[in-house]
Amino acid sequence: RQGCVDMNHGAGGRAGMQLIEEVFARAFDNEFLRQGDDGAALPAPPPGHRLVMATDGHVISPLFFPGGDIGALSVHGTVNDVAMMGAQPLYLSASFILEEGFALADLKRVVDSMAAAARQAGVPVVTGDTKVVERGKGDGVFIATTGVGALPPGRRLSGALARPGDVVIVSGTIGEHGVAVLSQRESLEFETAIVSDTAALHGLVADLLAAVPEGAVRCLRDPTRGGLGTTLNEIARQSGVGLLLDEAAIPVLPQVDAACELLGLDPLYIANEGKLVAIVAPEVAEAALAALHAHPLGQRAARIGVVQADDHRFVQMTTRFGGRRVVDWLSGEPLPRIC
Amino acid sequence: RQGCVDMNHGAGGRAGMQLIEEVFARAFDNEFLRQGDDGAALPAPPPGHRLVMATDGHVISPLFFPGGDIGALSVHGTVNDVAMMGAQPLYLSASFILEEGFALADLKRVVDSMAAAARQAGVPVVTGDTKVVERGKGDGVFIATTGVGALPPGRRLSGALARPGDVVIVSGTIGEHGVAVLSQRESLEFETAIVSDTAALHGLVADLLAAVPEGAVRCLRDPTRGGLGTTLNEIARQSGVGLLLDEAAIPVLPQVDAACELLGLDPLYIANEGKLVAIVAPEVAEAALAALHAHPLGQRAARIGVVQADDHRFVQMTTRFGGRRVVDWLSGEPLPRIC
Ligand SMILES: Nc1ncnc2c1ncn2[C@@H]1O[C@H](COP(=O)(O)OP(=O)(O)OP(=O)(O)O)[C@@H](O)[C@H]1O
Ligand SMILES: Nc1ncnc2c1ncn2[C@@H]1O[C@H](COP(=O)(O)OP(=O)(O)OP(=O)(O)O)[C@@H](O)[C@H]1O
Ligand SMILES: [Mg+2]
Ligand SMILES: [Mg+2]
Ligand SMILES: [Mg+2]
Ligand SMILES: [Mg+2]
Ligand SMILES: [Mg+2]
Ligand SMILES: [Mg+2]
Repeated sequence: RQGCVDMNHGAGGRAGMQLIEEVFARAFDNEFLRQGDDGAALPAPPPGHRLVMATDGHVISPLFFPGGDIGALSVHGTVNDVAMMGAQPLYLSASFILEEGFALADLKRVVDSMAAAARQAGVPVVTGDTKVVERGKGDGVFIATTGVGALPPGRRLSGALARPGDVVIVSGTIGEHGVAVLSQRESLEFETAIVSDTAALHGLVADLLAAVPEGAVRCLRDPTRGGLGTTLNEIARQSGVGLLLDEAAIPVLPQVDAACELLGLDPLYIANEGKLVAIVAPEVAEAALAALHAHPLGQRAARIGVVQADDHRFVQMTTRFGGRRVVDWLSGEPLPRIC
Repeated sequence: RQGCVDMNHGAGGRAGMQLIEEVFARAFDNEFLRQGDDGAALPAPPPGHRLVMATDGHVISPLFFPGGDIGALSVHGTVNDVAMMGAQPLYLSASFILEEGFALADLKRVVDSMAAAARQAGVPVVTGDTKVVERGKGDGVFIATTGVGALPPGRRLSGALARPGDVVIVSGTIGEHGVAVLSQRESLEFETAIVSDTAALHGLVADLLAAVPEGAVRCLRDPTRGGLGTTLNEIARQSGVGLLLDEAAIPVLPQVDAACELLGLDPLYIANEGKLVAIVAPEVAEAALAALHAHPLGQRAARIGVVQADDHRFVQMTTRFGGRRVVDWLSGEPLPRIC
């Protein structure tokens, strides 16, 4: 029992308070969390800015995978959703649901990684919550993070704003996160290691948006669950347009391609946690690509397609062999618990 | 399988999109959620206001209990933590973790109740997330809600601000929530029904704060897990003071008293979800009580004690028999999964 989460840690008494102080508050330490009240009182965004709010639950299995763990992922995922709105992420909250019997050493490892990711991103965890469920009613640890950001005046990015002629850009190679997690789960060993791309994208987004006039970036989206294929279908649907992709232009690492071949998967439907899709006005496409290329997280950015008028809102792709096929929504066997 | 949550609902494809549209978006419907992007873009608080952010995971078992369910509770819990900071709650986010096999009819019931609670509180669910875990890795549904609120200029409420001479007030009878949940869990039937007090307290807080000068309410706190006894210990610890309570003044419904006697529980350590503790300056205690009494949720508000200097930070209580005892932090058998 010693060294494990027990029901007492969630009952609202002294054991929970000690866990919060020794594990969470110590790792996340910042002036807001230190207030120690029912919530955190925080400086508001600069005048004229609006708020952005985004939330994600993280239930990934396994908790530790090549390139990351649930802690870092829970910061990156929410920072990225805030950033995709064109906002500067300011604050995070974190709700932990622990399973009875979960090793405190693993919890510490997760929390320390989360704290490091938050610190690196410059986005503090300002308030939190800790609940415990009985053995067999949870899975080690779930983390729900919510982010609040500041949206500058006049900025509007939305999946509803793509229009025919716009250019589709992806910020780098796709599929690493999902393949890294699956390979860990199935204990597969590939010749070349595949590590998750999990990363906070708000710096990349800031550089991109600074490089082009306001309004020229129509939409940003992180292709997480469902992968690039599903994300592009979401945008096509929201904007009432079609997309035409060029398969040969979509960057995929050779080892990811090989692993997908082996596993019978299509990289287009594999989750990413450190990539973005940008739909941009054609006249800024070059400038946007240049801005992405200049950032460490955008070096393999590529123009992968165009937006076109299409009442059917189809995402189509010119294949390597010169044919054309529809890239549908994710269907068939799901890849669960990937984020 | 039909009519149940399956792994596909969490995989990021079409099934998940349909679940979100048909169950969540329909129930929560509001202009912000309708944006349908990675997060919600929201009007900022009025100029000069700060932000408040609070989060809670909800893992209550059973999901439905006399007087409420996990959906309503998840709104009330977070609205209340925002309100305890003295802020006006503005927006909620909701992260759902669903267990494979959970009945969609139960999910709809929970979501509809949550939507009704949000609407009644006037605080919309502006963004959300839906994940699915395998059977045996969750427990039906967990909901993590985060609230953002607006804190007026110059307002500061904190558990650290209680000072000797201040008066301790509770807004009503204690113990109903925990006893209602326990009785449902243990299939106990009491002669008089005991229903949870779950309620949103921001209206009550607004009336209280409007009735007294800024600064006269030192601290507000909702005595949830751990009950009134633990909450008062938290405040004593944070402020570096002692508290002296008057047992006879603490309002408890007779049926709650009877149930606690039967179950060997102390109402002081039972969770509440629609009550607050206020520490107020002595000169405003009467006005504060009058403001609480004038609100439907504060009719049984009572002055239950005073703050006193005490380096040991003890919470003590004058018992009904004229003795004095220490009211310690919650210890002994925990009451888990109560919220
Ligand atoms: N995992 C965590 N990480 C960081 N801070 C946490 C964490 N869990 C709790 N806290 C902080 O500890 C304090 C107490 O949290 P707690 O959840 O007990 O309060 P509460 O929400 O008012 O109670 P309840 O959860 O019973 O409604 C808060 O300041 C909260 O922000
Ligand atoms: N339970 C829910 N209640 C309300 N809205 C929801 C819920 N789940 C998802 N949504 C909304 O549906 C849209 C898509 O959510 P989704 O979680 O798929 O996006 P994402 O966070 O970008 O992806 P991922 O979760 O894979 O990182 C968002 O606008 C989100 O606010
Ligand atoms: Mg509270
Ligand atoms: Mg996301
Ligand atoms: Mg809490
Ligand atoms: Mg996203
Ligand atoms: Mg709370
Ligand atoms: Mg999400």
